[in-house]
Amino acid sequence: MKTQTWSRLWLDYHKVYEENKSYKIQLLGFSEKDRVIANALSEFKTGMSALISDDVLLSSDMDDAGGASILKIVMTDSVPTQGYSIKGSSEGILLEASDANGVLYGVFAILRAIACGKRPEELHETLAPSNPLRMMNHWDNMDGSIERGYSGNSFFFEDDEIVINDRTRDYARFMASIGINGIVINNVNVKGAASYLITDRYFDRLSELSGIFEDYGIRLFLSLNFASPIEIGGMDTCDPLDKGVISWWEKKTDEVYKRLPKLGGFLVKADSEGRPGPFTYGRTQADGANMLADVIKPYGGIIIWRCFVYNCTQDWRDKKTDRARAGYDYFKELDGSYHDNVILQIKNGPMDFQIREPVSPLLGGLKHTNQMLEVQIAQEYTGHQIDLCYLIPLYKEVLDFRTHCCADNDTVADVVSGRMMGNRLAGMAAVINTGDDMNWTGNDLAAANLYGFGRLAFDTTLTAKEIAIEWIRMTFALPRNEEEVLCKMLLRSRGVYEKYTSPLGIGWMVTPNGHYGPSIDGYEYSRWGTYHRADHLGIGVDRTDKGTGYAQQYYEENAAMYNDPESCPEELLLFFHHIPYTFRLKSGKTLIQHFYDSHFEGEEEAEGLARDWESLEEFIPKEAYERVKERFSLQIDNAREWRDQFNSYFFRKSGIADEKGRTIY
Amino acid sequence: MKTQTWSRLWLDYHKVYEENKSYKIQLLGFSEKDRVIANALSEFKTGMSALISDDVLLSSDMDDAGGASILKIVMTDSVPTQGYSIKGSSEGILLEASDANGVLYGVFAILRAIACGKRPEELHETLAPSNPLRMMNHWDNMDGSIERGYSGNSFFFEDDEIVINDRTRDYARFMASIGINGIVINNVNVKGAASYLITDRYFDRLSELSGIFEDYGIRLFLSLNFASPIEIGGMDTCDPLDKGVISWWEKKTDEVYKRLPKLGGFLVKADSEGRPGPFTYGRTQADGANMLADVIKPYGGIIIWRCFVYNCTQDWRDKKTDRARAGYDYFKELDGSYHDNVILQIKNGPMDFQIREPVSPLLGGLKHTNQMLEVQIAQEYTGHQIDLCYLIPLYKEVLDFRTHCCADNDTVADVVSGRMMGNRLAGMAAVINTGDDMNWTGNDLAAANLYGFGRLAFDTTLTAKEIAIEWIRMTFALPRNEEEVLCKMLLRSRGVYEKYTSPLGIGWMVTPNGHYGPSIDGYEYSRWGTYHRADHLGIGVDRTDKGTGYAQQYYEENAAMYNDPESCPEELLLFFHHIPYTFRLKSGKTLIQHFYDSHFEGEEEAEGLARDWESLEEFIPKEAYERVKERFSLQIDNAREWRDQFNSYFFRKSGIADEKGRTIY
Repeated sequence: MKTQTWSRLWLDYHKVYEENKSYKIQLLGFSEKDRVIANALSEFKTGMSALISDDVLLSSDMDDAGGASILKIVMTDSVPTQGYSIKGSSEGILLEASDANGVLYGVFAILRAIACGKRPEELHETLAPSNPLRMMNHWDNMDGSIERGYSGNSFFFEDDEIVINDRTRDYARFMASIGINGIVINNVNVKGAASYLITDRYFDRLSELSGIFEDYGIRLFLSLNFASPIEIGGMDTCDPLDKGVISWWEKKTDEVYKRLPKLGGFLVKADSEGRPGPFTYGRTQADGANMLADVIKPYGGIIIWRCFVYNCTQDWRDKKTDRARAGYDYFKELDGSYHDNVILQIKNGPMDFQIREPVSPLLGGLKHTNQMLEVQIAQEYTGHQIDLCYLIPLYKEVLDFRTHCCADNDTVADVVSGRMMGNRLAGMAAVINTGDDMNWTGNDLAAANLYGFGRLAFDTTLTAKEIAIEWIRMTFALPRNEEEVLCKMLLRSRGVYEKYTSPLGIGWMVTPNGHYGPSIDGYEYSRWGTYHRADHLGIGVDRTDKGTGYAQQYYEENAAMYNDPESCPEELLLFFHHIPYTFRLKSGKTLIQHFYDSHFEGEEEAEGLARDWESLEEFIPKEAYERVKERFSLQIDNAREWRDQFNSYFFRKSGIADEKGRTIY
Repeated sequence: MKTQTWSRLWLDYHKVYEENKSYKIQLLGFSEKDRVIANALSEFKTGMSALISDDVLLSSDMDDAGGASILKIVMTDSVPTQGYSIKGSSEGILLEASDANGVLYGVFAILRAIACGKRPEELHETLAPSNPLRMMNHWDNMDGSIERGYSGNSFFFEDDEIVINDRTRDYARFMASIGINGIVINNVNVKGAASYLITDRYFDRLSELSGIFEDYGIRLFLSLNFASPIEIGGMDTCDPLDKGVISWWEKKTDEVYKRLPKLGGFLVKADSEGRPGPFTYGRTQADGANMLADVIKPYGGIIIWRCFVYNCTQDWRDKKTDRARAGYDYFKELDGSYHDNVILQIKNGPMDFQIREPVSPLLGGLKHTNQMLEVQIAQEYTGHQIDLCYLIPLYKEVLDFRTHCCADNDTVADVVSGRMMGNRLAGMAAVINTGDDMNWTGNDLAAANLYGFGRLAFDTTLTAKEIAIEWIRMTFALPRNEEEVLCKMLLRSRGVYEKYTSPLGIGWMVTPNGHYGPSIDGYEYSRWGTYHRADHLGIGVDRTDKGTGYAQQYYEENAAMYNDPESCPEELLLFFHHIPYTFRLKSGKTLIQHFYDSHFEGEEEAEGLARDWESLEEFIPKEAYERVKERFSLQIDNAREWRDQFNSYFFRKSGIADEKGRTIY
């Protein structure tokens, strides 16, 4: 572990007013002996002490002296699973829930509301979580590195061992406070020691970790190596229809659940980017997922199966193959054949977490299969937690997207919540952005994405702005003016990043491998299926019915909208169409002039973000202020490099000068 | 060490005819006790046994029974240092030399001549080496890796230890057989354990290694870390004018020479690509080199100082700074101020071992400074010993280049041999292409470059074809027809590689870092000073008096020639000029059509090389045949990738179609 101390993020409560207060606890239907309830009460005491009074006393003796408020916690079936109802009055607070998670989330809701300015007596909120599953996916490797990690090393693993300490518990608290109820601790690319997480070598430590999670209402999940029968079982096949393989998995699963009875299940990346999978044996993705699901079913476990399957050795010369089509092509025809404890995890877009992509047509394209939305909080393509990029607006766009899979309840939020098809296994997962940096997320402001994902997964009706305000109040407790400055910074940051990077949905143009900084042709002649197809006349990929046909993977309304450059949302124009540089956009600008303008503007706006940050200096703790300031300086460098490389590339290629005569190299 | 056996390269003599033969040895002025002489005699016996007779007997008893031939070795001042004179007759062979190295080289000359078809009685050759210093530079790291190594790992180092075994001795034999007399065993980028090569930790092993080299007439050299006073001396400066630093070096050098009395000296890469150097302290390159030279002088050592100094953090937007200028700009004004045991080592071109560059204007630009030519046998930019690229024609072009530094003796060969300014410290060095692969050079055919460099450094009048024939005869002993096939393959291979890679002297366009395979813009927006400046109208760097002024670094005749696109050699056109795609070349073709034609032709010719190799199948040992065949298959893949990426890039950028309508993507 690199740091011995770490920030408390949004749980570092700031005093909102002074009041000497004590609370009597009344538990009806719940027991203090339940570890989750005990932790909820502990959080209540810690939080209220910090927010209101230096020392909030808790007492369960209802006969105690008067003057104390009452926190009455009542079990009731009328509140949905993991939901809560809170109501303040002059006598205290009533918290109703049907289970311990609901109580925990209710307590955090009380603290959040008070931290955001409500007084206890004003509390009034009833909420059921939008999504049954609200998960974090760590891409942590057991050597301590993190794939696409920009916040230091793993706090779960070091030198092939599992690390457990006070930081682990704080992490669980953070996750519970935003409603996370499932965590995959290891990278989906399961290699080396991680293949042995399902062996006796790690059961003791995993059991301890699982216990810490359970105490905060969180289920532990593991990423699984589909080739485990070969790699740790010594077999010569992992064919999912092979009897020996099935029998191996049955024994292995029994062994695992004897030691980890509360394990949520497994996350599997198969047949993807070099990972083994059922395709190797001529089997379908359903064959692979169902086999594991059947094996794990008696233990109440689930199989989360990723849909990130595509040909990553494509020939760049081949303009017919389209990586964007792959997920739908592989998974759609198997719709309905997945068993009921399988859930397909689908990335928000058909490519890979670009700053702008259309929504994956698989979401809602599948109508008879459990499905779950995967987004990326880790800023792999969105600035490496150096550049400010508040991602909640992006997630909101995805959730609000109407798939037209049915008449009502057809948004992505409807689909992944289970409302569309009435299923229980549904939800949202995110590739997390944490590491062992003192501030957890590298850039202090990137914690807004971490916080925001959890809040949004719990309540998809929240707006990006509401979430930003909550996070700012809980983290920095700024004066209203400054709060607004920071809130606006967050809300415009994604647009700024998009302006100075790849435009109008084309994506990529990043430095190969690292994915930070520009390399306009970096993925153009590569094997990854990631092309912009720019020539001296125009740019973009024809994914219409005359091109790769990707647009036709959507339901009729969306297919028609995307197929026509006139109706295609302009921010996705180059994703769906090959467009001349002289094409007039709705603004009246030519495409190439839009390129130049947006890149000059993007860089200027990045400087604006930095200036706004500097205006907050006196209100932000010094160390955090300096850390973020340093990052804005790097962001400006990055924005300049993008602006100049991008503009130079397209000026050199098109020969069309900037109308405003600005410097292009 | 990866392999336990290894090939004997060109010393794996093939029988040329059968004759039962014994030789009486007559040594006049030399002693068999001299280890070099003893090794020469041993080589003679081994070689003659293999070439002529199964068991050549050597006897020094001149009264022995008749019938034996005489090998008479005579010391004489009339043969220059390290030279030899050999003359065969019916009685035997007379070998005259003035020193032991001359005897050793004379013996190898005898064996080479016989292997190439001469009978002993026909021998007649007198030769003095063209260059006093003929050196190999290993870029071997002490962890066993090799920077820019394409033939396995180091055979000198493994896990920070020095490896010495039978392979070491064979390596020394190979080097002696081609006239190498100095070897730098460690990478010029001296880091980690390599900084400690000048400490007691390694003296024992270095002494042993030095002994093996000495026995074959070779001096051991070490690459030096200029920051040694800091890194291993615990000082806080390595300022070359600091008295403490000088005193530290004096003590260190004394310590080194006590243990390694025959050490040739040190090679230093300073102020280059992140290496420390005198610039850090506001000192000149001469300050740094002279300080070390003065310290080492009492021990007879020399300082070889590399001139590869340039700004490697250039802004690609900056079109005034020109990396090509850097060497001359840094070193020319100090001409004459270097002490007499300093020698400047200058890369053949001003950039970095590209497939085509002009000759460095420093060569001959310096007229009062010891200077040495550095070439690269390791195929960093020329195909990684996968693609066939016989480099001797390139070296010949460099050596034959007239610098116009004076009326006569003005070629690079004159300059670096010492003929131009009459100096003793002069010569040629090469970055070697060896590793611990069984065949030493990855591609069996790449051994022709290893062999050829040594032969050329010893005798710069040899032609590329003569060297190729020698190497083929000694290595494969093919029938004349097949010899001609292979010889022609070698001789055209550099042209083939140039055709399908970067054209007309522009260079680069390679995959960043690795330097194999195309990435047309890979170094275009980078910090390395390596730009092609292509836009939709043209390509090339203006280095004339209207551009960066680089052409003016040459003496008048060359400056004028390069400055004008009409007189500039066409193969360097884009190095010196920015040229429109529609410019007509001397062939009558437009530039862009030349681009397309040469890339289609280059790929076809790569296929032709592979076919020619296949025609040799029955004459080449099976394992070597298969190894090389596999590499040709990779070369064809590479040539196709270059052809298609290059053509697509320029078609997309220029919008000008191929006149012949071939497929461009």
